[in-house]
Amino acid sequence: MRQWKRLQDMAGDEDKLIFSIVDLHAITMPQDAETLRSHRRVMLAALLAIGLDPQKSTLFYQSSVMQHSELMWILSCTASMGYLSRMTQYKSKLLAENKAGNLDEAISSRLKLGLFSYPVLQAADILVHRATHVPVGDDQKQHLEFARECVTNFNHTYNQELLISPETITAPSPRVMSLRDPSQKMSKSSPNERSRILITSTPKDIWQLIMSAVTDNLNMVTYEPRERPGVANLLELTAQCSPEPTTPADVADSLMGAKLGDLKARCAEAVTAELSGIRERYTELLRRQGGKYLDDIEAAGAEVARRNAEETMRLVRDAVGLASLK
Amino acid sequence: MRQWKRLQDMAGDEDKLIFSIVDLHAITMPQDAETLRSHRRVMLAALLAIGLDPQKSTLFYQSSVMQHSELMWILSCTASMGYLSRMTQYKSKLLAENKAGNLDEAISSRLKLGLFSYPVLQAADILVHRATHVPVGDDQKQHLEFARECVTNFNHTYNQELLISPETITAPSPRVMSLRDPSQKMSKSSPNERSRILITSTPKDIWQLIMSAVTDNLNMVTYEPRERPGVANLLELTAQCSPEPTTPADVADSLMGAKLGDLKARCAEAVTAELSGIRERYTELLRRQGGKYLDDIEAAGAEVARRNAEETMRLVRDAVGLASLK
Repeated sequence: MRQWKRLQDMAGDEDKLIFSIVDLHAITMPQDAETLRSHRRVMLAALLAIGLDPQKSTLFYQSSVMQHSELMWILSCTASMGYLSRMTQYKSKLLAENKAGNLDEAISSRLKLGLFSYPVLQAADILVHRATHVPVGDDQKQHLEFARECVTNFNHTYNQELLISPETITAPSPRVMSLRDPSQKMSKSSPNERSRILITSTPKDIWQLIMSAVTDNLNMVTYEPRERPGVANLLELTAQCSPEPTTPADVADSLMGAKLGDLKARCAEAVTAELSGIRERYTELLRRQGGKYLDDIEAAGAEVARRNAEETMRLVRDAVGLASLK
Repeated sequence: MRQWKRLQDMAGDEDKLIFSIVDLHAITMPQDAETLRSHRRVMLAALLAIGLDPQKSTLFYQSSVMQHSELMWILSCTASMGYLSRMTQYKSKLLAENKAGNLDEAISSRLKLGLFSYPVLQAADILVHRATHVPVGDDQKQHLEFARECVTNFNHTYNQELLISPETITAPSPRVMSLRDPSQKMSKSSPNERSRILITSTPKDIWQLIMSAVTDNLNMVTYEPRERPGVANLLELTAQCSPEPTTPADVADSLMGAKLGDLKARCAEAVTAELSGIRERYTELLRRQGGKYLDDIEAAGAEVARRNAEETMRLVRDAVGLASLK
């Protein structure tokens, strides 16, 4: 998230920044409606709390802009089934849901079209806004590759350079690992709540979580990511949350001779400091005007996003031969 | 088409009749934009020419109503890949395009997502308007079955009876066969233009097409569909185009002792009479106000369809937990 804030702060007057909270993607797996509504608002509050500014960035819910689904259908008509079958994420999602069985079984009995076809919606999310750059994590690179494939297919079929091929922005984004198992990414979807720090975690939560983080039984501080992943993770977290730019190795150096308890205390302190303003803003934003404040920001963002998407769709509909809406 | 007119004329004040010209479906195969635009207007003119009345029926282009694509995505998330794979129409379309190869080859190299997933869009077309009855031909029955499957999946997932399961209306609709090969349906997509009569065919065209229709070398008139399919087809056409209800067998009886040339003349006369008013209205409608007349009818129809679809989507978005548009 900090990378997004950085992008916003670096943006020039000509740049448009668009952040879509992708609730249409969320429903590829079963969701409770109330939970989905609440997660969506929580996500919006979090984005604002970390410093995205509605005056500079457009923030909206994907399902507020029908043009995303409309473009998805159009892209579907030139997207290859073979390419989609070779993508891997739907397979791992199914496997995660179906640990007992094997993949073939899971696919034939459980696979829904939406889980298979969602890279096309994801491509539409990007292309409908004619995005030139998309910041993604490593695990999303294949989806951006697919979005470019959609551009090629569409532009070739309709014989014009209409859709824009987006470039990947890969910032050196740190991999923060689980506090319970440093071989796994820290993740909201892990069943173990003690494996992660949330922006809503209180200083007391943070202290407890980090003090009980899994490290190893060598009671000294060294930065050896391969041999000592749990310790390296705490060093990484501490470096990331330092007010001044630093590296995990430098943090380790500054703790030479100290014990793991000292590292944990330093880490908890740094994380608490980094999150303190954010957590308070977040909580306050969710409550402000009984929720109306967030709703209004989203409504304004959706309006801007709709206009932006509609501009693209007018060109697309014209190229394809579809009806031009009024 | 006459069945649709009949449905309109039988409709009560409470009934809504909705006719969508499905241009979004047309693009599952490559289309020239200008041709698609022209085909769409031609279809609208034809529907009006046969007697659909914009005061009683809602006529619009599918691509004018984004809610169709929006619902399609939502249905995709509960639609089974296995069920879609077992549907056959995409396979036959691919085979028709790829006569030289075999099916597996065609599927792996040519299949686009849109051709595979379009039954879900078709289901959305029906369900977004909460249609209770859909008039379909035999070849569309499996699609209506699939639409009902989508209703079951959606209502079960979201645990409410929200979407409505549509019933099939199958009227005794005649199968009119090709004039060049009476074992094939008469079809707009046949490469042989001499195999079909269009509503734009002039009396002279009709005369020539029917006089040269393939029959057999027994120069007498009998109704024997199995043994004499070409003759039976002309009897069927004549019966269908008679001003008074009659059957092919009765037409054959009335031509006892006559020759095939007499049947052809009678058939050409009946078809010409049946189409004459239609052809003129059709041509006039396409020209009226330089096209503006048709555009205005479509715009008004699209507005009604959008409102109707939006009513459903408000319920759907609420059930799923998506953003409620303003």
